[in-house]
Amino acid sequence: MLKAGAEGCLLSTSVNLLYMTGQVINGYVYIPAEGEAWHFIRRPAGMTGTSLRYIRKVEDIPGLLADLGLTKPSNLMVESGEMSHMDWLRIQACFPDATLLNGTTELRAVRSVKTDYECSLLRASAVAHAKAYARVPSVFKPGMTDVAFSIEIERLMRLEGNKGLFRTFGDMEAFFGSVLTGENASVASPYDFALGGAGDPTNPIGANGSVLKEGHAVMIDMCGNFTGYLDDMTRTYSIGKLTEKAYKAHQVAIDIEDAIQEAMKAGVVCETLYDLAVSIAKKAGLDDCFMGTTQQAKFVGHGVGLVINEPPVLATRSRDILQPNMVIAVEPKFVIEGVGAVGLEDTYIVGETGSEKITHLESGIINLLDYAH
Amino acid sequence: MLKAGAEGCLLSTSVNLLYMTGQVINGYVYIPAEGEAWHFIRRPAGMTGTSLRYIRKVEDIPGLLADLGLTKPSNLMVESGEMSHMDWLRIQACFPDATLLNGTTELRAVRSVKTDYECSLLRASAVAHAKAYARVPSVFKPGMTDVAFSIEIERLMRLEGNKGLFRTFGDMEAFFGSVLTGENASVASPYDFALGGAGDPTNPIGANGSVLKEGHAVMIDMCGNFTGYLDDMTRTYSIGKLTEKAYKAHQVAIDIEDAIQEAMKAGVVCETLYDLAVSIAKKAGLDDCFMGTTQQAKFVGHGVGLVINEPPVLATRSRDILQPNMVIAVEPKFVIEGVGAVGLEDTYIVGETGSEKITHLESGIINLLDYAH
Repeated sequence: MLKAGAEGCLLSTSVNLLYMTGQVINGYVYIPAEGEAWHFIRRPAGMTGTSLRYIRKVEDIPGLLADLGLTKPSNLMVESGEMSHMDWLRIQACFPDATLLNGTTELRAVRSVKTDYECSLLRASAVAHAKAYARVPSVFKPGMTDVAFSIEIERLMRLEGNKGLFRTFGDMEAFFGSVLTGENASVASPYDFALGGAGDPTNPIGANGSVLKEGHAVMIDMCGNFTGYLDDMTRTYSIGKLTEKAYKAHQVAIDIEDAIQEAMKAGVVCETLYDLAVSIAKKAGLDDCFMGTTQQAKFVGHGVGLVINEPPVLATRSRDILQPNMVIAVEPKFVIEGVGAVGLEDTYIVGETGSEKITHLESGIINLLDYAH
Repeated sequence: MLKAGAEGCLLSTSVNLLYMTGQVINGYVYIPAEGEAWHFIRRPAGMTGTSLRYIRKVEDIPGLLADLGLTKPSNLMVESGEMSHMDWLRIQACFPDATLLNGTTELRAVRSVKTDYECSLLRASAVAHAKAYARVPSVFKPGMTDVAFSIEIERLMRLEGNKGLFRTFGDMEAFFGSVLTGENASVASPYDFALGGAGDPTNPIGANGSVLKEGHAVMIDMCGNFTGYLDDMTRTYSIGKLTEKAYKAHQVAIDIEDAIQEAMKAGVVCETLYDLAVSIAKKAGLDDCFMGTTQQAKFVGHGVGLVINEPPVLATRSRDILQPNMVIAVEPKFVIEGVGAVGLEDTYIVGETGSEKITHLESGIINLLDYAH
């Protein structure tokens, strides 16, 4: 904050309030550059605390700062990349002499490096996520649709403690994640996910009602919000036997993930990991279907945390440098014509000398027909 | 748009793109005050149409407008109440000579009056919603928690075609809706829902893991997104017998809803319906627990549509006037100490001479123990 020249920071979005206070409130957190943070709360009623004041509206805050003996900031950091323009105008009107600085990038950068406590919450999410995925074959029934399969997997996730909310940054909207099978895997989506899927016109991502057919792959990519912190994890299943190309591509995806895990440590520039992935895909002759066909995602991994898409991104041209306790989901995937999507995704905590996988589950393609009942 | 003095309107949020085009895209819709709308699309790849152009970024739009022979607007309506301040600045930079007008209120007002087609989608959502709720008693098991009960009801909703996404306007976040039982019904929430519930610190609304106990009520209030258009519906169940006060309050809620239905038609001022509700609650001696206890909501109904909280609101001091084809969820509820929440919610289409209920299901409290297996 000081580096950005701000004397205070006023936060109001759910994600940043959760980050600062451990809970979602309706109100604001004011952080002076020096001294303790203050909580200005509209709702819920009945909260108590020494650094807490109730307000009716944001316009009450300048007076409260004066009452509390706090300096009126001449440079105030706010969440300009997330808050609505109208909300921004209201804050500007509250502090007419202040320059409002956009803190969104800084806040996201701060959040991208996790504390050990946050890492423990991500590990707990990952353990529950893997437990739910381990039960996926048990809910498969021959002839079901991708949507019906998704519904049963959502239930498994919820039974393991998934909270359901899928928080994203930016214009993405998602419900739980995606189940992709057959030709639907190659349908382009408007969202910034690794792969697409037609979904539904009102939420065009993932499952679209396709029947799970023999010879097709089914890729499960759901959000692991078991602790408020979201791990990310993908596994591929098959209905019977897939083509040789599909198995080969899946093995290449495993090889890419292994290579990235080996290379992913503090100090590494993100684009080098994307380039590494592309070079392995190219060497295998699979670069034309790496991360999609009709629309290829230009990344192979991304930060996770309170939202599913935190920085940094393992993307082409990303000069971001990995730091210890960044938490990164690595997701090499291929779309194979006539089969669907293959590949996988695991979440890693970046360390000084290597990275720690936190999503532990068999990586190979599991044939659901072996479990059909 | 013309009334607001705008020569064009540039839309970019999911809800308004869905409203204008029937599908979510990543891009913009530009509507000149006269002439056809243009779609400027970033993703998905591969869309075709005569009024469609692909763009890489918003900065491409001014040039495209010129190429298409469209006048550069000097007053441009944008979604200032929804888009981020940074996105607003980018659009302002694209049209440096233009005044950007905040269209959020106008757009929400336009959306609040549904076409007959939109009403048919809301009716379809309501039918599916009622079908799912009719099966609620079948998934109850004695000793289960509110969360476990919620998981099974979510599955029923999904099996009837619920898309899962719960779209809201403003700072609310919700997953599916709420299941409220016992003391948890009186816990205040930061969100602007009719009732609260502790939920979880990361999403403080609704179920909190309470065991469903004999003598407690269970209120189910979930979002009916079966068609992209969201109906809203609440029913109350009991575990065994409740107190006399609870049954009495539930009957008063039914009476309030009936009275509102009778009075709710085109031309009526919204606050009169709220006042009517309060007067009936007061006459019954239940105004101290109407719409909550520790935190009382000051409304008894709200518009629904592409988001769960559309205008108008049947609220204290609301001078909004009902129009034909507004769609309103009416939700009189009481919180009864030692029991939980009772009451109900149904969705209505406002007409010239009355209102049409679209959520048809028994209104009384259903004793789940009669169905336990």
